[in-house]
Amino acid sequence: MIAILKHDATPSQVEHLVSWLKNMNLDVHISQGAEVTVLGLVGDTSRVDMDLLKSLDMVDSVKRVSEPFKQANRKFHPLDTVVEVGGVKIGGGHFAMIAGPCSVESEDQIIEVAQAVKASGANILRGGAFKPRTSPYAFQGMKGEGIQLLMKAREATGLPIVTEIMNISTLDLFADVDIIQVGARNMQNFDLLKELGKTNKPILLKRGLANTIQELLMSAEYIMSEGNDRVILCERGIRTFETATRNTLDLSAVTVLHNLTHLPVVVDPSHATGKANLVAPMAYAAAACGADGIMIEVHNNPSCALCDGAQSLTPVQFDALNKKVQKIREAIL
Amino acid sequence: MIAILKHDATPSQVEHLVSWLKNMNLDVHISQGAEVTVLGLVGDTSRVDMDLLKSLDMVDSVKRVSEPFKQANRKFHPLDTVVEVGGVKIGGGHFAMIAGPCSVESEDQIIEVAQAVKASGANILRGGAFKPRTSPYAFQGMKGEGIQLLMKAREATGLPIVTEIMNISTLDLFADVDIIQVGARNMQNFDLLKELGKTNKPILLKRGLANTIQELLMSAEYIMSEGNDRVILCERGIRTFETATRNTLDLSAVTVLHNLTHLPVVVDPSHATGKANLVAPMAYAAAACGADGIMIEVHNNPSCALCDGAQSLTPVQFDALNKKVQKIREAIL
Amino acid sequence: MIAILKHDATPSQVEHLVSWLKNMNLDVHISQGAEVTVLGLVGDTSRVDMDLLKSLDMVDSVKRVSEPFKQANRKFHPLDTVVEVGGVKIGGGHFAMIAGPCSVESEDQIIEVAQAVKASGANILRGGAFKPRTSPYAFQGMKGEGIQLLMKAREATGLPIVTEIMNISTLDLFADVDIIQVGARNMQNFDLLKELGKTNKPILLKRGLANTIQELLMSAEYIMSEGNDRVILCERGIRTFETATRNTLDLSAVTVLHNLTHLPVVVDPSHATGKANLVAPMAYAAAACGADGIMIEVHNNPSCALCDGAQSLTPVQFDALNKKVQKIREAIL
Amino acid sequence: MIAILKHDATPSQVEHLVSWLKNMNLDVHISQGAEVTVLGLVGDTSRVDMDLLKSLDMVDSVKRVSEPFKQANRKFHPLDTVVEVGGVKIGGGHFAMIAGPCSVESEDQIIEVAQAVKASGANILRGGAFKPRTSPYAFQGMKGEGIQLLMKAREATGLPIVTEIMNISTLDLFADVDIIQVGARNMQNFDLLKELGKTNKPILLKRGLANTIQELLMSAEYIMSEGNDRVILCERGIRTFETATRNTLDLSAVTVLHNLTHLPVVVDPSHATGKANLVAPMAYAAAACGADGIMIEVHNNPSCALCDGAQSLTPVQFDALNKKVQKIREAIL
Repeated sequence: MIAILKHDATPSQVEHLVSWLKNMNLDVHISQGAEVTVLGLVGDTSRVDMDLLKSLDMVDSVKRVSEPFKQANRKFHPLDTVVEVGGVKIGGGHFAMIAGPCSVESEDQIIEVAQAVKASGANILRGGAFKPRTSPYAFQGMKGEGIQLLMKAREATGLPIVTEIMNISTLDLFADVDIIQVGARNMQNFDLLKELGKTNKPILLKRGLANTIQELLMSAEYIMSEGNDRVILCERGIRTFETATRNTLDLSAVTVLHNLTHLPVVVDPSHATGKANLVAPMAYAAAACGADGIMIEVHNNPSCALCDGAQSLTPVQFDALNKKVQKIREAIL
Repeated sequence: MIAILKHDATPSQVEHLVSWLKNMNLDVHISQGAEVTVLGLVGDTSRVDMDLLKSLDMVDSVKRVSEPFKQANRKFHPLDTVVEVGGVKIGGGHFAMIAGPCSVESEDQIIEVAQAVKASGANILRGGAFKPRTSPYAFQGMKGEGIQLLMKAREATGLPIVTEIMNISTLDLFADVDIIQVGARNMQNFDLLKELGKTNKPILLKRGLANTIQELLMSAEYIMSEGNDRVILCERGIRTFETATRNTLDLSAVTVLHNLTHLPVVVDPSHATGKANLVAPMAYAAAACGADGIMIEVHNNPSCALCDGAQSLTPVQFDALNKKVQKIREAIL
Repeated sequence: MIAILKHDATPSQVEHLVSWLKNMNLDVHISQGAEVTVLGLVGDTSRVDMDLLKSLDMVDSVKRVSEPFKQANRKFHPLDTVVEVGGVKIGGGHFAMIAGPCSVESEDQIIEVAQAVKASGANILRGGAFKPRTSPYAFQGMKGEGIQLLMKAREATGLPIVTEIMNISTLDLFADVDIIQVGARNMQNFDLLKELGKTNKPILLKRGLANTIQELLMSAEYIMSEGNDRVILCERGIRTFETATRNTLDLSAVTVLHNLTHLPVVVDPSHATGKANLVAPMAYAAAACGADGIMIEVHNNPSCALCDGAQSLTPVQFDALNKKVQKIREAIL
Repeated sequence: MIAILKHDATPSQVEHLVSWLKNMNLDVHISQGAEVTVLGLVGDTSRVDMDLLKSLDMVDSVKRVSEPFKQANRKFHPLDTVVEVGGVKIGGGHFAMIAGPCSVESEDQIIEVAQAVKASGANILRGGAFKPRTSPYAFQGMKGEGIQLLMKAREATGLPIVTEIMNISTLDLFADVDIIQVGARNMQNFDLLKELGKTNKPILLKRGLANTIQELLMSAEYIMSEGNDRVILCERGIRTFETATRNTLDLSAVTVLHNLTHLPVVVDPSHATGKANLVAPMAYAAAACGADGIMIEVHNNPSCALCDGAQSLTPVQFDALNKKVQKIREAIL
């Protein structure tokens, strides 16, 4: 860590600061320049409160040189992590095609969709049982019963299942779930992350709407620091001024993450864009830039004229999408 | 709620949509224009999934006419809510001057700060016991012990106390806390909000970094819909592209909220700006635009040359700030 | 255009508003609902000041039903526009591979790069002569002399050239330029757009850092409304809270634009990301989601150890990039 | 300027970089740390291309130590600049109350408003003659004729006038204007700024919608570097994700600017918020945090029931606003 001090910092202020830092068991290298004094801090700086340091009057700026995440850091773990679950591998060249309905609604529905997406090449089934909703008056999901139905769909198809947890008190219900998802709104629910770090399940961690790539990695670090290193990161759009799409999908995050971490990175174009006609182009783009998987909402309601054009694709559209995604993956080999 | 259909929606699509909406016990008024068809939905539209509706191909846009929040809505509750706690009133012309350290560190520290801020006009004591930290390696607060020390400071000064909860499983530790704070990162931790709605404690609900004013009100609604209507809203800065301040304090939110809701609105300039020299000007601005209270970080470390200039004010600075805030409040009467 | 009035608008207010609107030669259809009154405005609403209308107390919200852009609108011009310049076609299935250095520096440099990128498959040469720089003290480009050198490079290679204009008073210098670029900072320099609309040159119009997709189309409309319909749109990243990349490339804009307009859309991954290792993945993603072209910075400084890794690619890297882009374009056919 | 090099930079890369920097007449101090090498660059670093430096593979980050603006910098000019025009002073404790209509519409209108706002305490008259509009089909202002009418209003009231320029080719029309305004969309129209720097008129420079505080100061520097140091900065809201207000007024920018520069800073709450009921609270907040002036839209259309509630205040509302603003200014003395 490097702290740049303002040119008007007095010698006694600098001395105070240096002794305070040394009290934290840090070595401090002082480099006095013409306009500025630079302190180089060596040692375990992960406990240094950067915000406090930055807020000092004498400090111009503070810069971490070593990233504050360790276990998620590619520097200390150069090889890609491959997460394996239910016979499916994700990362290190293995691609996850995760598909399924937004919400689990009934046994027939989830089994039918599961069979359709499997036939079209999906290798993991998604479906919401606990639904985070902005309004307390909106449908909040089938909860435990929804998880039971997902397990029946797994039995029928062999596809491992991923579903979202909202509250650590419901963890028992996820005992037989293959991958536990943490939603964007809970990305910094640190107590939840720590508890999930004590399980042995793969965690699909979605980036928060207003969270930086580094904050996403720090949240992964919360899980990993408790012993669970099977974390899958998910880019799903960030909040910007643009209103033409629900969120702005940040595909450059895929490459930035691949440079910083060994963890697999998947992309969810359905939630990012909110419009069916954007899902396929963004899925192709995600595959082209090297994502380790994509997550697609698929419904099965052929009789429902309404549903065509919604954020969810039909099984037929998903089938076409998957074929092109595979061709693009070959093109970039 | 109004749904505007695209001009190329077919009659059979419109018919499907209308019958689907009627199945939700809504009356549907169809207004066929030259370029567009407008559906007016009457009834309990709070359960209608706007995102689904918007995502349909035939739908151009959807607009709520009645706000989706009810109990927080000033239309149905025109008079200002006054939250009363430990003899202090907030809202409806009553001003909360909340002050205290970022974190509780020791009995001496918290009692000393409490006495200092009380002497300078604070009427509520703040202090963090559970600290949400981006890094798992950073200090996470004194937890239950911190709450015990806050209660000692209350005993010593008579000031009611406010402190943050991060996890519903720790609720027992808050049994004697006066006001429970929900931090920005937990603003959409809906399960936590629902549980707090079952308590009889005032809740200080901070706006999330990337959350709209309406989402803040929907989170208040989660608490209120469970029976607890003592909610205090808090603006504490939003995330924007500007990096000169930690966040961008959105003071227009104070007036927008006052128009939409009867709940009191306080402002936290310390966390929003991250720099001591911005705290006082933003506190004055908050008072001038009609906030029902402000929250200020104050430390008591006279021997610590470091601390001057940090985000926290000294007791002496806080004293001066409070005097000007009171003068500004008189100026806008 | 639809105006939704608040439920407390008085009949006399509504009457005033309606007569004001009728004075603008609009037909007004009034639809009185239970909670709300909706006015449907029919006629030439492009002159109605939406901001004024929105700002009225009695008005809840205003919604354009027909897009405010006409000549750029795909509804009125369903077929893709193909811009043809110097024997190269852009749009409607024709792909522009635009490459060249950030700035023109010398005759040798620009001719050498031009020959290299042509050999690797570029069909248009880019190079900055007038450089918009945040600082008045930074190098502002070779200006007119730079344009002369670009023309020499065109002579040597046959590649048509594109370069940026900053000020209409320099238009004469662009008389022999093939495509005139309008930079992101000038996207809403309306007087410049109008003058360019009077030329017969293709205009490459870059999206502003904080401009919506609709504003980009309105700026295209400024050019087209003066008679020049050869506009090429360019997505080059928007400003968000994320600091890991210079800007956030909004690739969903490509598909959104293709739905709304018939104009070709190209993507500039070099400026959007600011890092060489992100250029290729984002170029692949742009090709995969259907962009009509990409713009890549390429330098030719094999002896400069510095330059490797900068935002600009080497000719060798560009050659590899172009091969993969072509394979991806085949994969999505 | 400080450049932090990655720990895997090779000695030969570092050597290349250092010699490249020395070629730019910079002294380079190398500080080799355990994890990192820091280069301290001394000399005229304002010409160093930070973006290029940052984009090098071996470079972790680059940090300016001295601000890139010189003439606008408070460090080199500690005393507040006071801009004096037509007998009115702005800055250094002198407050500008700028008021007037959005657009000049007729002689009667502008004179009537001018007289009303003067009577209520305004000391400068504003009014748009050239109007930057998103749509080419919208009213673009009375142009030269509007400026003539503003001058008649000045004659009638003695108030100096401020109006916006959009295009340097119209500069002659501004020969008798007191203050020339540069709008948000032109904040980085560098050629326009340079030309205005050659005039001897005060320039009111508005912050761009997506521009940082530092970029605003660099644009002021463009004007000042040409010899014109009478620049007034204006905060008028930035673009964020929040849609409840037209833009998000960033009042902390007032204090941040006062710390960085000696130039006066005014606030425009009318354009920032877009709603009349937010103008007064934000004007009070601006005064409370120390702004050197505010700019308020006032209309005079007592017979127009429509206009009440629009973004513009009535003269009566403006009168009340001004009285409270003055009381707040006394409160913070």
